[in-house]
Amino acid sequence: MTYVTRREHFSAGHRLHNPDWDEERNRAVFGKCNNPTGHGHNYYLEVTVAGDIDPETGYVVDLKELKEVILEHVIRKVDHRNLNTDVDFLRGVNPTAENIAAGIWKQLVDRIPQGRLHQVRLYETEKNIVDYRGDV
Amino acid sequence: MTYVTRREHFSAGHRLHNPDWDEERNRAVFGKCNNPTGHGHNYYLEVTVAGDIDPETGYVVDLKELKEVILEHVIRKVDHRNLNTDVDFLRGVNPTAENIAAGIWKQLVDRIPQGRLHQVRLYETEKNIVDYRGDV
Amino acid sequence: MTYVTRREHFSAGHRLHNPDWDEERNRAVFGKCNNPTGHGHNYYLEVTVAGDIDPETGYVVDLKELKEVILEHVIRKVDHRNLNTDVDFLRGVNPTAENIAAGIWKQLVDRIPQGRLHQVRLYETEKNIVDYRGDV
Amino acid sequence: MTYVTRREHFSAGHRLHNPDWDEERNRAVFGKCNNPTGHGHNYYLEVTVAGDIDPETGYVVDLKELKEVILEHVIRKVDHRNLNTDVDFLRGVNPTAENIAAGIWKQLVDRIPQGRLHQVRLYETEKNIVDYRGDV
Amino acid sequence: MTYVTRREHFSAGHRLHNPDWDEERNRAVFGKCNNPTGHGHNYYLEVTVAGDIDPETGYVVDLKELKEVILEHVIRKVDHRNLNTDVDFLRGVNPTAENIAAGIWKQLVDRIPQGRLHQVRLYETEKNIVDYRGDV
Amino acid sequence: MTYVTRREHFSAGHRLHNPDWDEERNRAVFGKCNNPTGHGHNYYLEVTVAGDIDPETGYVVDLKELKEVILEHVIRKVDHRNLNTDVDFLRGVNPTAENIAAGIWKQLVDRIPQGRLHQVRLYETEKNIVDYRGDV
Repeated sequence: MTYVTRREHFSAGHRLHNPDWDEERNRAVFGKCNNPTGHGHNYYLEVTVAGDIDPETGYVVDLKELKEVILEHVIRKVDHRNLNTDVDFLRGVNPTAENIAAGIWKQLVDRIPQGRLHQVRLYETEKNIVDYRGDV
Repeated sequence: MTYVTRREHFSAGHRLHNPDWDEERNRAVFGKCNNPTGHGHNYYLEVTVAGDIDPETGYVVDLKELKEVILEHVIRKVDHRNLNTDVDFLRGVNPTAENIAAGIWKQLVDRIPQGRLHQVRLYETEKNIVDYRGDV
Repeated sequence: MTYVTRREHFSAGHRLHNPDWDEERNRAVFGKCNNPTGHGHNYYLEVTVAGDIDPETGYVVDLKELKEVILEHVIRKVDHRNLNTDVDFLRGVNPTAENIAAGIWKQLVDRIPQGRLHQVRLYETEKNIVDYRGDV
Repeated sequence: MTYVTRREHFSAGHRLHNPDWDEERNRAVFGKCNNPTGHGHNYYLEVTVAGDIDPETGYVVDLKELKEVILEHVIRKVDHRNLNTDVDFLRGVNPTAENIAAGIWKQLVDRIPQGRLHQVRLYETEKNIVDYRGDV
Repeated sequence: MTYVTRREHFSAGHRLHNPDWDEERNRAVFGKCNNPTGHGHNYYLEVTVAGDIDPETGYVVDLKELKEVILEHVIRKVDHRNLNTDVDFLRGVNPTAENIAAGIWKQLVDRIPQGRLHQVRLYETEKNIVDYRGDV
Repeated sequence: MTYVTRREHFSAGHRLHNPDWDEERNRAVFGKCNNPTGHGHNYYLEVTVAGDIDPETGYVVDLKELKEVILEHVIRKVDHRNLNTDVDFLRGVNPTAENIAAGIWKQLVDRIPQGRLHQVRLYETEKNIVDYRGDV
């Protein structure tokens, strides 16, 4: 098994907030991430595909094709957007790094050109990182 | 002349917008940075102080003190905030990287514990960088 | 299973030395790392917690809480210290990156606020990296 | 199980090309990577060894020894070389990142001084990364 | 004076060689960089523009426009190319980092949309860096 | 004028301490950097040489030669050493980043193979950086 990873980048705004809770509990749990006017991040996304090396191409997956899939189905929808309000695949979701990574997984899992999706890694900052590998 | 630099970090949201223009012109000039619901960045800030090396301490400036000044007068006010609405020293300013850097310069220029402020560098992303050295 | 990682930093001094060996063997095995007056590093620590995403918070673990645990039980004890002499949880241990990572694991394994400790990664330099996952 | 990683660097030239295909198909599949006069990269190589921590040394593997093995059997052969024509262990191989990583694995797997080879990671750029773990 | 920098990336092949010298002298001066089959690098390019902050836009220069100029007049011509043979603005030039930076300066100096070109920085590797500021 | 920079690395131990002061004042001024058993850092050193591009070689300075000078006169003396006790060119000096950079400048200023020494930059950590340009 060989693993191939493509790294992409997007900048987005968000606010952590659970609408089922009152303001006090939201502030207690999410702290400064609950700031009502929002804040944002430069997110780095690493998409890893697992598979065998194709003897004809020497590729597990053509990274040019994988890049196009990521750009069309993820980056175009989240870059320079507000993750609470602007993104179809995050509608109704509290945009923690965990939930964003899970949403990106669902966007990509059936669209990998060759091999199979192994992991979505999301850097919210260089200190906060999430790895999502599906819910099986 | 010796130069000492302290690097700090903050995450914030912003929207580029000139209230004197109509929406069409704002979109034409600022493009996706004009998204009405905002977006955000992980900003890296590098504050450079110039001076002579103090023979007793071996310091141009005590970086522990410089750090405290930056945290109190800049980071505390901008981290996890919306730069269009939440920051006193950016009130009425279109928060481009240039204008944020100039605002940070004004916050710091009279508060440097030793030596004198030489430059404020702001990384909006790893690809977009501004150096501000005052308006003299 | 989802994995959440928090990255922290500390600077420390150390010397590689096995007190059961004579000086010649210590020098032969540890080379310049055996320098009697010591040397040091900027260590980067990445603590990874595995778990399910809590549907109420969207978190595997609250990284603010995880950060506090790491600061109190690891960073406060090792930052700007000598790892051979100053750190309770490394007493009697030759402070190789492997042994430091194992010591940090033991400090953290029973203190993870939610989920379970999956891995301690320690960068001694950007070229020398250790991953410790417990001794089961 | 503990994992120890050593990071090294080399610069090399290459051209992606399958000699069994005509020029048109090569251009269609490999795009700009098929440029007849070649191009090149700064490759970063991370070699990971798995094993137990030796109680006498505190090492899984002596990284000084591992470094020498990597320098002699990999870096010396690929640094400042053309990967299509100059490297014995890549002869007849289309030098995709996947195939280079597999070739490096074969160079190293029987030469690890202590523990066993776990993974060869190759960064072709900071956006294109391959992990190879053998073909078992 | 405010300075704005845009960072871009390209991968290219090259060989250091002075056609006025014999092979022996070329090897003596350029060492492994003279390898006849070439090698290559991931180059990082930082283009710095100096100017005043436009009070209407808050920009020294619109980085979206600067990026387009760099992509069209530099990156498109050098990315995935051989710098000895494929690039019009480097024809007849020994492609050292210094000469590449000077060539990029000439490509850009009259095409800056606002402000004036201040510096071209080129990272050949993370250890070898050139700053070119024109020949005045 | 063109500027060429070479980046090198060393790991070393140090303790900030002024022997003319009592322990209390040392602790008050230097804080945790005054820890009696010392600590240490991974230092990154960037040496910048200014000059004209030699039309025959395309070099301001041959970086292979500059590297050798830095390795022999700086890195060999400081790597895996204690900067308070082991380094001839830092004898009697309180090893702040400013003083180390000044010491390295004196080691290098008369040994630059071509061009002239322009700046010594020293990263003590990624957050604390010093630029030294001589005392003229």
